[in-house]
Order: sequence, then C-alpha cells, then structure tokens
Amino acid sequence: MTLPAVVPFKPGNPKSRLSCVLDERERSLFAGAMLRDVLAALHGGGCDPYVMSTAPFDLPGERVVVNPAGLNESLNEVLAVTHGPLLILMSDLPLVTPPVVRRLVRTKEDMAIGPGRGGGTNAIFLRAASRFRVDYYQASFLKHLRIAAEQGLSCEVIDSFRLHTDVDEKEDIVELLVHGTGESRRYLEGLGFSLSIDKGRVGVERRKD
Amino acid sequence: MTLPAVVPFKPGNPKSRLSCVLDERERSLFAGAMLRDVLAALHGGGCDPYVMSTAPFDLPGERVVVNPAGLNESLNEVLAVTHGPLLILMSDLPLVTPPVVRRLVRTKEDMAIGPGRGGGTNAIFLRAASRFRVDYYQASFLKHLRIAAEQGLSCEVIDSFRLHTDVDEKEDIVELLVHGTGESRRYLEGLGFSLSIDKGRVGVERRKD
Repeated sequence: MTLPAVVPFKPGNPKSRLSCVLDERERSLFAGAMLRDVLAALHGGGCDPYVMSTAPFDLPGERVVVNPAGLNESLNEVLAVTHGPLLILMSDLPLVTPPVVRRLVRTKEDMAIGPGRGGGTNAIFLRAASRFRVDYYQASFLKHLRIAAEQGLSCEVIDSFRLHTDVDEKEDIVELLVHGTGESRRYLEGLGFSLSIDKGRVGVERRKD
Repeated sequence: MTLPAVVPFKPGNPKSRLSCVLDERERSLFAGAMLRDVLAALHGGGCDPYVMSTAPFDLPGERVVVNPAGLNESLNEVLAVTHGPLLILMSDLPLVTPPVVRRLVRTKEDMAIGPGRGGGTNAIFLRAASRFRVDYYQASFLKHLRIAAEQGLSCEVIDSFRLHTDVDEKEDIVELLVHGTGESRRYLEGLGFSLSIDKGRVGVERRKD
C-alpha cells in the first residue's frame, strides 16, 4: 500500500538566507533540486507524494496542487478531509532517504514527528490525519507535541539528523556536501561549492569562475 | 555484558565559543553537567564508561584516567591495546540517551559512527578496536569513513540528531532547551536560560538577575 504524502512548497524567492552565496535564480533552482530529492526519498520509501504549491510550478512527472493559502491554513484544509494516513514532509530536507521515510511511516504510535533544528517540525506522519491540526512557525515542535497530547494521540519522536537538517543557511550546506547523495548536492558542486577548512572549522567555499 | 566506553574530556577553559552567554566558571560547570549526562546515557545503555581527562578532575562515582596527550594521540594509545570492543563518545552531547547508545553498540557491522554537525565525529563504536585508529579535527567524519575503508571494516552511519548535536555555540542551546532531559538542561534553566522568539526564529535568552 502506498501512503499519501504532501510536500508544501513556495516557489517565489525561496531560501533568502542563502542570498550571501546564491543569487535569486540559483536559489530557485536549488530549492527545486531539494524538492526533487525529497520526492525521490518519498517514492523510494513507499509513499505517493504530491506537492502543495502556493503558486503554479512546473515539475514534470510529479503531481502539483496549487493552494495560495498560508502553510497552516492549506495543510489544515487537507487534514480536515483526510481520515486515513498522511505524511507531511518539508521540501528543504535534501538529506532525507527512503529509510528515514520508512522510520516515519512504520511508527507503532498514532503519529510520528521529526523535529527540525531550532525547534521546528520537519515531518509529521499521522495514521488518522483528521484528528490532528498543524501549527507551524516558531517552536512548532513543542506546539505539535502539545496538540498531540490534547488530542489523545500517542507520538513517536523520530531521532534522525537527516530529518533534523533543513538547509536554510550557509552552514547547512556543509551538511549537504558531507552527507548528501542527490541532485541538490550535485547542483551546488556544479556551481563550484566545496568544503573548506578555516581556523580548524569546516565551512564551504565557492570557486570563482 | 557491559561494553567498555571512553569519554575524552578537557577540563581547562572549556566551551570558549559559549563565552558570549556563560562566564568561565559557568562554562566549566556546564561542561561537567554535559559530561555527567553523557555518562548517565552510557550507564543506561549498558556500557561501562570511563573518562579520559587531559588533567586531574574530580568526578565522584566515576572512573577518571588522566592522559595529558592530545585527543588523537591518547585515543590511539588506547585503541592499540584494545583487542575487543570499545565505544568512543564525546562529552558535549547532552541529548544522547540510552537508546542512542544501544543503536551504536548493536550495529551488525564491524563499526558504527555517529557524525557530528559540521563534518565532525561524535561517536565511534568498534568491535575490534585495535584494527582502527582515529583522526579527529576538521572533517573527521569523512576521514574516519576513509580509514574504515582502508582497514576493510564495514561501517554503519548512525542517523541520530541526538548524536549529531554537540553543544558548542549559543544556537545549540536551543536544541538542549527543546530536547534535553538531564542535568545540563536543568543547570542552564537554573541560570535563567529559556527559549525566546526573535523575528519568528527561536533563540535563547538569559534572565537578568
């Protein structure tokens, strides 16, 4: 049985905190490459994913549903009418692999949650989606644990750095160059990114053409 | 069977990158609290740990061996004479729990490695320790994978954010306040640390007395 999965995506001016190393067009292409890495992990993990985009977006071979509403509003619309299982996975997780997806969907609890760095929520798997509602932004991981408790839902926290690592800032690119295996790593390497050592600490540098 | 585990520790002026929020005495007490959290996780995970300290250090109820040599030199001395299994775990991993320790020591491969944020290595478990040598600093995770391959050792990478998260900088304290359950979290909360929201992002603040 393939499990439905939704990946929220916002195509306009993505990943602005990477402006120091990528221009707007590059950030847009990089965000698309990360999205395709996430979709590949979902397909490989036995899910049937679709992208919920705030604006029309061309993604050959994948399903895209447009909903211009905010993240919480659009996801809560989906949850309200989904009585079976649903996996919600963010689009900026290029380290996620099929085994990580399987750890989420094979939970023995009512739901599984993957915390993100900085108190965020990178994944939520629900056996009965309509029993939950999301509340993203700020320390959403703690809010989601609270909502689960209020709804009487048992919850497993998935302990995975691949799920924990969202790529928002230059430092996060180190993780992608160390642990990534997909298209988004190849895209950055093609732009000339590589690991660098500065005062004993690992960073990234971009080759000047 | 309890497995031997070694936790390297450097008592003098620890965690200097936390100087912006903790004075030297507080950093020393905080480093000790993190060390005790790591030792508690090792005991709970079925290991028999000892601390390998660069200088004498009082730690009631725990074994401390003093070796003033550098990290690589002192660990490689231990590895050379350890023909059975050994777990090496860093001391600044206050999110590590007994289940994380068990994931390391129950690997089916010759060794297991826990990557740290920024290309580092936070844990190495070896079935036959004398077949390996360590090479910490810089992108040590990649170096350790290479050494494993050179030695013909199969290696499992443990995908755990609890193992990946070393506490070096102010931002890392967010992770401790969200996910920590031990002494080091209580120590910081006792100093007045709590989560804060600044421009929609989660940080930490310290109450002024």
